[in-house]
Amino acid sequence: MGQHQLKFYYKNVTAGVLGKEHGITEEQFKHLAAKSEPLIKQLNADRKSGRIRYRDLPYQDKTAEQVKNIAEQFKWCRNFVVLGIGGSALGNIALQTALNPYMYNLDASQRKGPRLFVFDNVDPQQMSSFLNWLDGELDKTVFNVISKSGRTAETAAQFLTVCKMLEGKFGREALKKHIIATTDPKEGTLRKIVDEFGLRSLEVPDGVGGRFSVLSPVGLLSAAICGIDIVQLLAGAADMDKKVSDVNFYKNPAAVNAAINYHYYNRNKRISVMMPYSFALKDLADWYRQLWAESLGKAKDLAGKDVFVGPTPVKALGATDQHSQVQLYREGPNDKLFTFLAVEDFDIDVQIGPAPEVALELEYLTNQKMSRLLNSEKLATEYALIASQRPCITVIFEKICPYTIGQFIYLFETSTSIAGMLFGINAYDQPAVELGKEATFALMGKSEYAELGERIKPFAKIDDQFII
Amino acid sequence: MGQHQLKFYYKNVTAGVLGKEHGITEEQFKHLAAKSEPLIKQLNADRKSGRIRYRDLPYQDKTAEQVKNIAEQFKWCRNFVVLGIGGSALGNIALQTALNPYMYNLDASQRKGPRLFVFDNVDPQQMSSFLNWLDGELDKTVFNVISKSGRTAETAAQFLTVCKMLEGKFGREALKKHIIATTDPKEGTLRKIVDEFGLRSLEVPDGVGGRFSVLSPVGLLSAAICGIDIVQLLAGAADMDKKVSDVNFYKNPAAVNAAINYHYYNRNKRISVMMPYSFALKDLADWYRQLWAESLGKAKDLAGKDVFVGPTPVKALGATDQHSQVQLYREGPNDKLFTFLAVEDFDIDVQIGPAPEVALELEYLTNQKMSRLLNSEKLATEYALIASQRPCITVIFEKICPYTIGQFIYLFETSTSIAGMLFGINAYDQPAVELGKEATFALMGKSEYAELGERIKPFAKIDDQFII
Repeated sequence: MGQHQLKFYYKNVTAGVLGKEHGITEEQFKHLAAKSEPLIKQLNADRKSGRIRYRDLPYQDKTAEQVKNIAEQFKWCRNFVVLGIGGSALGNIALQTALNPYMYNLDASQRKGPRLFVFDNVDPQQMSSFLNWLDGELDKTVFNVISKSGRTAETAAQFLTVCKMLEGKFGREALKKHIIATTDPKEGTLRKIVDEFGLRSLEVPDGVGGRFSVLSPVGLLSAAICGIDIVQLLAGAADMDKKVSDVNFYKNPAAVNAAINYHYYNRNKRISVMMPYSFALKDLADWYRQLWAESLGKAKDLAGKDVFVGPTPVKALGATDQHSQVQLYREGPNDKLFTFLAVEDFDIDVQIGPAPEVALELEYLTNQKMSRLLNSEKLATEYALIASQRPCITVIFEKICPYTIGQFIYLFETSTSIAGMLFGINAYDQPAVELGKEATFALMGKSEYAELGERIKPFAKIDDQFII
Repeated sequence: MGQHQLKFYYKNVTAGVLGKEHGITEEQFKHLAAKSEPLIKQLNADRKSGRIRYRDLPYQDKTAEQVKNIAEQFKWCRNFVVLGIGGSALGNIALQTALNPYMYNLDASQRKGPRLFVFDNVDPQQMSSFLNWLDGELDKTVFNVISKSGRTAETAAQFLTVCKMLEGKFGREALKKHIIATTDPKEGTLRKIVDEFGLRSLEVPDGVGGRFSVLSPVGLLSAAICGIDIVQLLAGAADMDKKVSDVNFYKNPAAVNAAINYHYYNRNKRISVMMPYSFALKDLADWYRQLWAESLGKAKDLAGKDVFVGPTPVKALGATDQHSQVQLYREGPNDKLFTFLAVEDFDIDVQIGPAPEVALELEYLTNQKMSRLLNSEKLATEYALIASQRPCITVIFEKICPYTIGQFIYLFETSTSIAGMLFGINAYDQPAVELGKEATFALMGKSEYAELGERIKPFAKIDDQFII
């Protein structure tokens, strides 16, 4: 096929490069392989029995067709606004930043679809600035509300606000024209509203958690509308599926990735830094933050024993954060594993201008390609980190295209599953977010939570003794 | 004066709230106070003797006038582009996000100055998307190149590229019209270029490191041009100066902040999460990331002994990251200190629309203010974290305005100085970034670094054995 490929490179975590104290020896890799291979087999079996639903998303040809159809129906719009949060926003943002130009929203000549906005917060200042602008554009705007249940407070609040605005301006019938919901096919609050108002909708597939849903209609619709080739995205994921199903540990990048992370976590490197050397890839690191943190941060293992486990994912951006974080990364505690994202061929380049004669110390930049500078900085930073015995992985994109982005997403999703098995925890639930949700309900005066509200009251009151 | 105030709230790190294992007891606070008070005095003395130059920035009335004058001269421009990186970008971005509307660049009716772009990277895709758009706007664009030395590779590369573009289009004379440099007053590469081409310039004050320079012309010019009241910004910082000079530990928010961070670092809570519950404040967390990481991440203490110390700052955004990080924050290792930024009065609000009759479970949102929801989520998250014995500080903004932003900046700068003293390290240097810079020079073919280049060569070659 000659498709561009994603490559996983891990030489710079080995003892051969870093020494025995901070590097992984061949012996240790053998142990990791022996521990991992049965887990790969188990994951493959679980997946075949239908328990790991996200693994099947690359093969939903009918869904892709349906999404493209809906995208066609909304070709008239000039602004496409996603209302969602967490797994219903981070993937959408990541795809857009990765696969569309930096100036997409500001420069009509650089886009093939509508402007895209993804609202994943309930900030009154941000929202009113946006709604003020939108007022003059409302007739050309479509809202994609994404929530499996429809009860997520932030998304519900945005959605109700937008409905009021649309109804006030164009009447209730207009909701049908301006809203497309992505939600549970059968039940839930948003499904009821969809049915009541006769809204168009797409399905959040059953059994796929929010943070694993980017390759479902959740992430695909905004991508398709903005001109991203979702068929290639899914094809890339399907291609990676073969690799990450390989029961030979050393040929399975997800298994090696998970094992390296697990190894270092157990050796007091509990911070996992993802550092793309590409602006386009930066929001993939945010998507990864949720995937990693919410999946692997767990108080109990599968046997119910307290473990309080979980690496802390950190996002950094090269070369920018060299001037912010690298001092710490090299000289602070050796408590981090670095995963660089690097691009071999940027497709487009910028030629740096000539240095003036009074500044011959800049002559080395004259007429150079900017891509060479950026990639030199990546290599230089990695070199400096290794000089300080800090372990580094690199995920190499031959090019940034839907195919390699699909590969990347699927690689890290499967890495998460395997890492969850290595840690012995459930990678698919998120029990700890419940209390915060309930406390919010209580503070917003929801009557069923009155008792909790009483318990929060003393805490909610500022105690002047501790204020400066 | 009736100015809005910043408040530092730390009850939720105390043993009274968290218990003795994870909270700070009165006894421990006394120890921290005893250790800190001499350091506050020393810092005050150092500052008086002129060794802590950033502390004097709030009082540069003449500089503020000069900056405002220059801003007046550039009133004709429609786009203002900052070329800088690290300390020459993060403060500029933070001020803009904090004090101008979300839709500033996209909505002419919401701005009082030119569009603002801050370029702090050398990404060829990002840059060419921007330059493509800029081509039609170049005659209305001003570039503010910021670099003390002018030799920072990224900034120099951008600057040379922009000079070539301007010169090619309008001739060399046009550089004078379209460029304003912020650089060393006397020496360095950029100063030479300024003199040669007769460019306008502002000064990077002597003895102020990049990450402490936001209240100098480095951060002030773009702010002033975009309509931010820089006099109020400096007044807020001056107001905070009084508080953070107080030798009574318990009345000094910078000292208490530094001591709490130091205390937890030494008790295996080495990750410091800053989590603003306000989109406007989110980039202040990025500014803080540099300040904290680059100042406190040090291999050696002042006596030259190996310490490899430094908390890892992490940026999170409320409520968004509740749906991404809070699962880890509550159930993962208890290895983090949380600093919330909260806003009492958002000035502007959005009223949430009514819930439809089929969805009475959303009734609790009907006609509520969005600010109430956001602030309830903050309180709810803090409540949930405390239920898991995780320590929480809150910095409260009565309002977001130049005065409180000035207070915040000065509070965290001084906190950094005191934390550096507690850790016994030099908070003002960054020795570890040198090797990466040199390696970049070598990889770009700078002849003085040929030997280093030879050493990097084997490392730069991908080893197929470790690629999947």
